Amino acid sequence: MKLLKDLILAEGKVMPGNILNVGSFLNQQLDIGLFNEMGKEFARRFAGQKVTRILTVEASGIGVACITAQYFNNVPVVFARKHHAKNIGGDVYHVGVTSYTQGTDYNITVSKEHLRPEDSVLLIDDFLAKGCAIEGLASLIKVAGAALTGVGIVIEKGFQSGGKRLRDQNIHLESLAIIESMSPEGICFRA
Amino acid sequence: MKLLKDLILAEGKVMPGNILNVGSFLNQQLDIGLFNEMGKEFARRFAGQKVTRILTVEASGIGVACITAQYFNNVPVVFARKHHAKNIGGDVYHVGVTSYTQGTDYNITVSKEHLRPEDSVLLIDDFLAKGCAIEGLASLIKVAGAALTGVGIVIEKGFQSGGKRLRDQNIHLESLAIIESMSPEGICFRA
Repeated sequence: MKLLKDLILAEGKVMPGNILNVGSFLNQQLDIGLFNEMGKEFARRFAGQKVTRILTVEASGIGVACITAQYFNNVPVVFARKHHAKNIGGDVYHVGVTSYTQGTDYNITVSKEHLRPEDSVLLIDDFLAKGCAIEGLASLIKVAGAALTGVGIVIEKGFQSGGKRLRDQNIHLESLAIIESMSPEGICFRA
Repeated sequence: MKLLKDLILAEGKVMPGNILNVGSFLNQQLDIGLFNEMGKEFARRFAGQKVTRILTVEASGIGVACITAQYFNNVPVVFARKHHAKNIGGDVYHVGVTSYTQGTDYNITVSKEHLRPEDSVLLIDDFLAKGCAIEGLASLIKVAGAALTGVGIVIEKGFQSGGKRLRDQNIHLESLAIIESMSPEGICFRA
């Protein structure tokens, strides 16, 4: 997606440890005009497929997921929690995940009320690197007995293993920008 | 806002410790159609006022803030972090906050790049109880030298002190539903 790639080149900062800082438009300050264009693009790429629910994980994925849902007939957005909250009642699905960006292990949790066996779920997240968060979410969907329609990612780090592993499982993965390599000197995209 | 109050009565569950569980539409599963109606209502209530940025705090406020921004000319949404993340670079503003729902103390953090002295900021959040998170965000705005246009809240717990304290400071506070009292037997709204 050209608009997104142009923004990554103009505003993204490559930081030590293969971290890409795109905080000015994607995950601290959120560019709502861009998010609408991304939502339309996800709708185009998953056109004709059944989506009854969009699932993401807090916090950076929530904004993209909510704006995107508007292009999927306002289906509900559910976000998995990374941290314990007192206002989650009842039974939950949970799975352990390792975060690349945060450098920590954590549990992600979704209330059983919000993920049902009859659901067809589109996963949306801002980044795909090693794919641990997405694989965690996919395993929650499986445990719930629901169907995984596909995975929509804003920025895939193509030089890490997550994308290949998902595609090898025949999961329908759509990434709006795939970074082939990056360094403080520059960023190259997969064609 | 009638649509919201009807949903609170139909689906809200009052849990021990004065916790209101509205996870089915507000803070775990997000009702995007409702969020659009809330965004329109915030735009109506803050009509004619200068808003260059919407500020919220992760995680539950993000969805409402993003959808609402569409009714404020797609102004950028900035969310304060509660947890350390490696991809926040540079200088940050931070302030200590006590969470009622989570039962913990934490620091909230915003990058200085995303809150500028020339900004007029609308604060958006899902709940207002004792007002600690909102007062923390307001103090970040003050430290940044920006202006606080107002505060838009989805559900105010009118029986707790936050709303009164903000109104006593002549802050323009708009809450879409104000709960006067609640118990497992029922929920009463302020007229």
